[in-house]
Amino acid sequence: VLNKRCGKQSIGFVNQPVIISTANIGGPMEGEGLQSKYFDIIMKDNINDLNSWEQCESYMLEQVITRASEKISGSVENLEFILAGDLLNQLMSTHFAMRTLARPFLGLYGACSTMIESMMIGAMMIDGGFANLLAGAASSHHDAAERQYRFPTELGVQRPPVAQWTVTGAGAAILSSTGSGPKLTYATVGKIVDMGIKDPNALGPAMAPAAVDTLITHFSDTGRNPNYYDMIFTGDLGYIGKEMVIKLCAEKGLDLSNNYEDCGCMIYKEEQDTHAGASGCASSAVVFCGYIYQMLCKKNYGKILLVGTGSLHSPTSYQQKESIPCIAHALAIEV
Amino acid sequence: VLNKRCGKQSIGFVNQPVIISTANIGGPMEGEGLQSKYFDIIMKDNINDLNSWEQCESYMLEQVITRASEKISGSVENLEFILAGDLLNQLMSTHFAMRTLARPFLGLYGACSTMIESMMIGAMMIDGGFANLLAGAASSHHDAAERQYRFPTELGVQRPPVAQWTVTGAGAAILSSTGSGPKLTYATVGKIVDMGIKDPNALGPAMAPAAVDTLITHFSDTGRNPNYYDMIFTGDLGYIGKEMVIKLCAEKGLDLSNNYEDCGCMIYKEEQDTHAGASGCASSAVVFCGYIYQMLCKKNYGKILLVGTGSLHSPTSYQQKESIPCIAHALAIEV
Repeated sequence: VLNKRCGKQSIGFVNQPVIISTANIGGPMEGEGLQSKYFDIIMKDNINDLNSWEQCESYMLEQVITRASEKISGSVENLEFILAGDLLNQLMSTHFAMRTLARPFLGLYGACSTMIESMMIGAMMIDGGFANLLAGAASSHHDAAERQYRFPTELGVQRPPVAQWTVTGAGAAILSSTGSGPKLTYATVGKIVDMGIKDPNALGPAMAPAAVDTLITHFSDTGRNPNYYDMIFTGDLGYIGKEMVIKLCAEKGLDLSNNYEDCGCMIYKEEQDTHAGASGCASSAVVFCGYIYQMLCKKNYGKILLVGTGSLHSPTSYQQKESIPCIAHALAIEV
Repeated sequence: VLNKRCGKQSIGFVNQPVIISTANIGGPMEGEGLQSKYFDIIMKDNINDLNSWEQCESYMLEQVITRASEKISGSVENLEFILAGDLLNQLMSTHFAMRTLARPFLGLYGACSTMIESMMIGAMMIDGGFANLLAGAASSHHDAAERQYRFPTELGVQRPPVAQWTVTGAGAAILSSTGSGPKLTYATVGKIVDMGIKDPNALGPAMAPAAVDTLITHFSDTGRNPNYYDMIFTGDLGYIGKEMVIKLCAEKGLDLSNNYEDCGCMIYKEEQDTHAGASGCASSAVVFCGYIYQMLCKKNYGKILLVGTGSLHSPTSYQQKESIPCIAHALAIEV
């Protein structure tokens, strides 16, 4: 990579930041799913002997950042900065985790794209020479998110078939200016795309056009095509959104039929009956910080494109009859 | 500045980003206050013929970013990136403004420190070579914030004397790799500080220790002392928080008695009866993007330190009896 500014929305990293460690955590349902072998920590339940789901989410963030540091024989104290966020109002879980970890902190909100946003800004800080070692992290908690966005779990409201299941989990990645591991090579910063969908259950279909917009821009900006990558992953479009991406890309002449998967289709087994798949900040965070990172380290993948997808609505915007603004950020990660 | 990494929490800018333009907007109460001469736009009321306070807040963000672009004979189209945030759940106002402006976007949440966080990350993007022109922006809206954090305005609940008045307004700053204007020289990224205050009305006192922590760290990291700066401004501590900062700094041997002011004490007149002063993302945003920026451009100030202060609690954390985690980020701006 020679140019840091690349096309309309992309960035090329010259001193490519290395992802030297990751860690992830999941709840019991996630632990019984398709990623069971790839979790560092699986909680026995969704509250972990704490007083609230929100506190449990803070605990998960603390655990993944600490565990990712320990894997490289370091400690959280060595992290120059932490960039993180979650889905809760005022990033509640992140802020209490950051209070515990007590490192210089930058709060981000990209809804379910936050894990990728944290690595993208973190990578600019490292390539730019402002840091040598930092962590990006994101979390979501099924019950905390459901009661905020939709209905309290205890109410037992029936979920529509289009609904996705918010993942209880967290992921953290440690980025370094030196060391070995997969490198961040390009980033494409998304624009907001809103195709008028108003149903806050149908988040995959709402986000799919944003993912497609960022994919097309990424290929145009970098001169690459889908075949350049061994795999392309989106964050949490689920089964319906994933099919939309394949179809919408095909209409634009981009064939994703062979090397594309959505993290929201990689977490739960069919018999877990989550309907349209997984969602939440933790969807891309746990799959990237577990399975994908391990595949990159083993060189089973050489080049991947990770596209974080975020649905940026709020309960208030829904009540005000607004449609759902969405965003997608892409990161190219290569061994 | 020679070193990009500086001390424990600070960053020095080598290719110092220039703030080539700013714009700000306020509501009618702000327009009647102490900053009346320094607003680009004063709205006739707090809803501006829109359907909700949240939509009005989106409108304010759109206006300041557009106006700041127009002042340099540019358009929003020229902005490579926008970094922005607000106080509302899921950054509601920011996201709908960004849908309208349709530029590559990174969402930030630092509560009332967001304006400074946006310029800090934006400055790293420019100094790092990832962008040549971008905007940082933040907004708050009194009525939208009150009904989310405390009580709906229509309820007429009596405010305690310690309460501050959330500013209706927004500010935007355009950062460039070239051009003339005040330059960003150093940034100090804050850590979370929580001294156990639980009253969500007493935000100034809650945030003051975070401001002091960042001030002490900034001086220690850079080797500067308070006298280096013509003025030091904090974001929205109000009258009570400001006095605490002076006292706490004096205890640490730092004399702020001659060249320190809080933006939250610079917006409303005493007879406007806001109690402890102003607060909200717009507090530092409107004062920096108006008065302070103009004083820098006229060389009335040569060197200032701008400390964004954020109270990171949520209504949920308050209901769960948690204390208030706070943060402060500092930016040195010099002509």
